[in-house]
Amino acid sequence: MPNEQLTVAELSESELLARIFPRLDHSPGILLGPGDDAALVAAPDGRTLISIDTQTQDQDFRLEWNNGYRTTGYDVGWKSAAQNLSDINAMGGRATSMVVSLTMPPGTPVEWVEGFADGLTAGIIGLGAADCSVAGGDLGRGREIAVTVAVVGTLDGLPPVLRSGARPGDTLALAGTVGRAAAGLALLESDIPAGSLTAEQRQLMDGQCRPVPPLAAGPSAARAGATAMMDVSDGLVRDGGRLAAASGVGLDLDPAALKPLAEALRAASDLLAADPMTWVLGGGEDHGLLATFPAGIQLPQGFTAIGSVQAVAEGGRTGVTMAGLAANTVGWDHFAD
Amino acid sequence: MPNEQLTVAELSESELLARIFPRLDHSPGILLGPGDDAALVAAPDGRTLISIDTQTQDQDFRLEWNNGYRTTGYDVGWKSAAQNLSDINAMGGRATSMVVSLTMPPGTPVEWVEGFADGLTAGIIGLGAADCSVAGGDLGRGREIAVTVAVVGTLDGLPPVLRSGARPGDTLALAGTVGRAAAGLALLESDIPAGSLTAEQRQLMDGQCRPVPPLAAGPSAARAGATAMMDVSDGLVRDGGRLAAASGVGLDLDPAALKPLAEALRAASDLLAADPMTWVLGGGEDHGLLATFPAGIQLPQGFTAIGSVQAVAEGGRTGVTMAGLAANTVGWDHFAD
Repeated sequence: MPNEQLTVAELSESELLARIFPRLDHSPGILLGPGDDAALVAAPDGRTLISIDTQTQDQDFRLEWNNGYRTTGYDVGWKSAAQNLSDINAMGGRATSMVVSLTMPPGTPVEWVEGFADGLTAGIIGLGAADCSVAGGDLGRGREIAVTVAVVGTLDGLPPVLRSGARPGDTLALAGTVGRAAAGLALLESDIPAGSLTAEQRQLMDGQCRPVPPLAAGPSAARAGATAMMDVSDGLVRDGGRLAAASGVGLDLDPAALKPLAEALRAASDLLAADPMTWVLGGGEDHGLLATFPAGIQLPQGFTAIGSVQAVAEGGRTGVTMAGLAANTVGWDHFAD
Repeated sequence: MPNEQLTVAELSESELLARIFPRLDHSPGILLGPGDDAALVAAPDGRTLISIDTQTQDQDFRLEWNNGYRTTGYDVGWKSAAQNLSDINAMGGRATSMVVSLTMPPGTPVEWVEGFADGLTAGIIGLGAADCSVAGGDLGRGREIAVTVAVVGTLDGLPPVLRSGARPGDTLALAGTVGRAAAGLALLESDIPAGSLTAEQRQLMDGQCRPVPPLAAGPSAARAGATAMMDVSDGLVRDGGRLAAASGVGLDLDPAALKPLAEALRAASDLLAADPMTWVLGGGEDHGLLATFPAGIQLPQGFTAIGSVQAVAEGGRTGVTMAGLAANTVGWDHFAD
């Protein structure tokens, strides 16, 4: 980053906040916004959904990728919004507010921070969470950029949809997509310059940098009677395995239903001579919704059947199969190698 | 840290979580705890207080200080609890739950993480926030240890106490303490080995590593009719200046009332040949409560009068004075030098 850019070290905390606040929306559910020690948010049904997620530089994103693409503050803001809003969506809820902690080195350009605030707001609005806005936050210094968002939401009186409710015979369905963010990651990490990519390939890259979780689908699934739900952040097989374990069932994926998802990644898989099904089965970060529904009901808009829920014999192993065979592509674990 | 210790890189995420969960309490207000994409927490009066705070290694604490003291996971867990619970206290509220994001290098000893979980629980219980517990969290890798906690609380039907309500003639009062954490920090950063300190000096060090905010005082102040309130996390003069600015008033400190606070730091100030009043005026992180009350009312238990609220002439400067003179010791700003 060029030296002549204004950096956060050159501003006081209050000067920096004065550049951030005008870029944030203020939704009606925020009864008291930034400026006091805590914010106050409406919880209309007497309950609050809450979740927290961190993105750390060089772990969850690179400031400059191998293919030359530079992650913007806008990207990181959008992705922070997306992954947190998705956690509320996955319970069948609707986000009402966020609090944001931004840690960064003193040399971080102020423009990057302004872009971050813009991306956060654009993500919230662009993904359809118009009732949500930033209620407060925290700024601090660190050796690397780290963004933590805690998101709060409401179930509007409905029960939460848990991971543990899937029953044998249920239909397994997906809303949104899987594999695009992983295909985008493969492009970002490749030696093929970002500047030489086609529009379709750049869209896959965008899928990694600015994912688009299907936010309307969570509450729709809850109202339609979904028996279990979660978002796919660590990969279909790994996250499906978690849902299967929580429910004490097996999940059997239908390869024919996954094929179109893999076909949609051809622009990247052909270029990189990769098997796109690996991305479909193992790629997270698109924040698609994996849900189970009683057999025979009409799936809510946005969901496609991708398999079925199987009984597990007493003492047998829960897990994910594909057409009855082991689906051994695993997703992301933060610590295991 | 010795090499033979088990590190987080040697465990899967689920194995690490299995070591953390048994160390956390589960309070009745948590309707749905860890294990799904979001937690669900009771919000009995239809509103939720929320705040977020981050502690980053080498910014907010050092793993090993200049005087040889090693920060334990327990210390960081306790301090995370303390500073977040204090934000809810400062609004007049009562914390009901936390979500915790822990980012750390792969070489972090598992024992450190277990200590962190123990310290978090001990802090919550030891500080008197028995209705609060950890509802969920996030684990991730980074180059340095960073802990972000978002805390949720309830006002039990009362209005929040803001920074902006102080009125000329009000009494300025303090609950808890100021300066101890700063005195402790000076000891930690000194060349005098930790092992050679007296019990009283070690207690001041503990004030930096495991602060004890006065959690009962916030709701008491709200019920007693406090007109404004905030916690002192960046120093009495700096934070007082923020309250003064928000209220459009001046705060005049009474030196006689602050003298006992300075006297209590003699064990450190004599050793380091420092002026203890600098710590009292500029030191944060004790998370004492600064509040204003209508003149003449009996201050709630735990509060001591330390000054008064002054009118500011039309167009005049808000701010903090001591016996009418400028109090120019400033506290902590994360970015300004």
